[in-house]
Amino acid sequence: MSATVVRAILEHIPADRVLTDPDSVEAFRRDQAAWAPSGRPAAVVRARSTHDVAETVRACIRHRTPVVARGAGTGLSGGANSGDGHVVVALAAMDRIVEVSPLERLAVVQPGVVNDHLRAAVAEHGLWYPPDPASSPWSTIGGNVATNAGGVCCVKYGVTGDYVLALEMVNGRGEIVRLGRRTAKGVAGYDLTGLVVGSEGTLGIITEVTVRLRPLPPAAVTVAGHFGSIVDAGAAVQAVAAAGLTPSALELIDRHCLRAVDAWKNMGLSVDADVVLLGRIDEPGETGAAQAERMVDCFREAGASWAERSTDEHEADALFAARRLAYPALERLGPVLTEDVCVPKERIAEMLGRIEKTAARHDILIANIAHAGDGNLHPLLITQPGDDAARTRAQEAFAEIIADAIDLGGTVTGEHGVGVLKRPGLAAEITPEVMAMQRAVKQALDPYGVLNPGKVLS
Amino acid sequence: MSATVVRAILEHIPADRVLTDPDSVEAFRRDQAAWAPSGRPAAVVRARSTHDVAETVRACIRHRTPVVARGAGTGLSGGANSGDGHVVVALAAMDRIVEVSPLERLAVVQPGVVNDHLRAAVAEHGLWYPPDPASSPWSTIGGNVATNAGGVCCVKYGVTGDYVLALEMVNGRGEIVRLGRRTAKGVAGYDLTGLVVGSEGTLGIITEVTVRLRPLPPAAVTVAGHFGSIVDAGAAVQAVAAAGLTPSALELIDRHCLRAVDAWKNMGLSVDADVVLLGRIDEPGETGAAQAERMVDCFREAGASWAERSTDEHEADALFAARRLAYPALERLGPVLTEDVCVPKERIAEMLGRIEKTAARHDILIANIAHAGDGNLHPLLITQPGDDAARTRAQEAFAEIIADAIDLGGTVTGEHGVGVLKRPGLAAEITPEVMAMQRAVKQALDPYGVLNPGKVLS
Repeated sequence: MSATVVRAILEHIPADRVLTDPDSVEAFRRDQAAWAPSGRPAAVVRARSTHDVAETVRACIRHRTPVVARGAGTGLSGGANSGDGHVVVALAAMDRIVEVSPLERLAVVQPGVVNDHLRAAVAEHGLWYPPDPASSPWSTIGGNVATNAGGVCCVKYGVTGDYVLALEMVNGRGEIVRLGRRTAKGVAGYDLTGLVVGSEGTLGIITEVTVRLRPLPPAAVTVAGHFGSIVDAGAAVQAVAAAGLTPSALELIDRHCLRAVDAWKNMGLSVDADVVLLGRIDEPGETGAAQAERMVDCFREAGASWAERSTDEHEADALFAARRLAYPALERLGPVLTEDVCVPKERIAEMLGRIEKTAARHDILIANIAHAGDGNLHPLLITQPGDDAARTRAQEAFAEIIADAIDLGGTVTGEHGVGVLKRPGLAAEITPEVMAMQRAVKQALDPYGVLNPGKVLS
Repeated sequence: MSATVVRAILEHIPADRVLTDPDSVEAFRRDQAAWAPSGRPAAVVRARSTHDVAETVRACIRHRTPVVARGAGTGLSGGANSGDGHVVVALAAMDRIVEVSPLERLAVVQPGVVNDHLRAAVAEHGLWYPPDPASSPWSTIGGNVATNAGGVCCVKYGVTGDYVLALEMVNGRGEIVRLGRRTAKGVAGYDLTGLVVGSEGTLGIITEVTVRLRPLPPAAVTVAGHFGSIVDAGAAVQAVAAAGLTPSALELIDRHCLRAVDAWKNMGLSVDADVVLLGRIDEPGETGAAQAERMVDCFREAGASWAERSTDEHEADALFAARRLAYPALERLGPVLTEDVCVPKERIAEMLGRIEKTAARHDILIANIAHAGDGNLHPLLITQPGDDAARTRAQEAFAEIIADAIDLGGTVTGEHGVGVLKRPGLAAEITPEVMAMQRAVKQALDPYGVLNPGKVLS
């Protein structure tokens, strides 16, 4: 079957865009979710146009072969993982910024545009594309849309889906369709654009994205706090919300992460605290200054050993850089299993406490970074390479953290997506009736079952 | 068939909640879209609980009878119109505010809660539910969600759908399901919540809504401008966007509307201008003051005969009240056919010019109100009662305005929904392939075809 579908693809797409030798395709077998199963693709189509994507999907429909869309491969749930004999459509080369319109406050981009590149391009017009996953130097807008990626700024500015106005995609019938609109508002028909956001290539392969932009925000003031326990830091996050503040960032980093980053990058980060909270306020002028002072008070009242408004923006930037580098820094220590639960704010301290107990119970090192202001926690379960017993314990701990998040009224994935790793979690989170509705939608829009099967839904 | 389904409903729901006599049900036959066809319901179930709704839907499934959800009946596209022999589920009595959580910044409400009541209830906690359709003193949250209602504040704060976190609803299998979440973020499975928003009761009947809230915004500064032509006013709107301003309101009212409101309410409104633009800025302190001055400059540069920052908030409030009263004031003059097109900002002036020409060509009075900052225009086509020739001309003009909006890259409905009136427009706006995807989703989630059939899709 594999050879047949490859021949069919080669009828429409030049051979130099179609990788088939085993060594070359191996690099496209999986994303960053090292713990998720994957297989070797039969072919990798390095698409240069919507036409390439459409012809590939049509060939896969004719030969009933699964087709997997792939951006930069920075996903953390296995959503872009191939199976044996699947066809991978690599979209990284479709990286053109088609349009930036300051008047309409929108940009039109191909799916392979890197998040930071879009951010830089629109900044030249005084505009801002807010969604900022930690992978923003590498991850692509297509992948960000397919996973509904979050980031640091979401606590004030929302997630990727809040910025998607329109999509061009190849649907489950191999047709090129345009969903959504260029206008600020619109309610013409069901919101298929929103349905495709976060669908991880299972309802269509995105070939163009129209995103909303905002004016650049005012300069931010950073507030940092040191805490003796992760539970105290959780209480500080609740205090900030209860005080009516809306920070533009409210991040948590624990000592494991700070040490790992320091050991790697030698940034001279303070590591005498167990947990650091980093807040940002980007309201203008005196309003911003007053809110920053208020956040300092919230930190202190929750038991911070030290809390101050930063007077040195270089230092503040270094702390945020450490936040972004935490994941790769920890990966240097061993395989990392990344969690992504999200709980209501009133449950953050309790959830963090439960994670600590889970780590102790299973004798696993769990480092914590978190978009704390959103309740979106990223416990990182770290094992030594080759330690199979620890790997088993880590998987048990992972399942327990998911169960605790659901128990506390939370969700199994705040921003990484279901992919493969969170399929059991999704089945535990939603009822059989809602699962049946999810399946009905998938069946309706992917009638041949070729679009990234086995992701999101099993 | 009608009698049978009514008997089936009465097996589960007390008779005092089920209206069947012709005079009583007549009041529930249609919403405010007087021009859309409607029929007499076989029964009206005045639901008091989710259980009532579920039993009604189940009876309708068993007897393959269409079931139409109804809030306050303020819709403008016929989405809540009954057909002959249909069952109407009236949700106005399910009007309890179940929870307001300042910490999570959310509220949980039954569908019959009136928009302004929710707004008042959360204001007691220093919180704000932004979506503010002109119908807010009467329309319900359930109806607002079902139509993805817009309003004045959308230009800065988004539409109803941007505030819906979770829904409870009765689905097309008669099951009670919960969609969405309480957490700030979440990507567990397809976004069925977003799919149901704006679906006008065709994918499920909403029985509870969890909405996001924001802190109350700073006090706003109002800027007003008088213009000699509607096209100049359109140019001013473009100038505001091009200047990088984000007003919290930017409304347009023409002389026909001002006169009609003044004739009704005797508010002493200035009517020496052809068109008035009303802008609001709600940034704090000096930032807000500077932006308001900038908006005055934009108005003047675009040719305003007069433009000032308002120093009298009573006067400013009266102008915004006039904006809200424009529709009922014009209805006093004769049947009103309400348009709702939305165009890109760079096309606003051109679209307003085309509407003027259409009015002249068809010899029809077209008054204009608009959420101008969004490009969401509401030309109001007014005819004399009993003038059938004018009615025909108005319908021709209506179709032409829709065609012009599509031609200019806009949409046929910015915030009122497709209902019945915009079904031909929807079919003109989207391609047959996208229409087929819309139908596939409908079929998947309403397998028995009982949920408000003939609305959105024909």
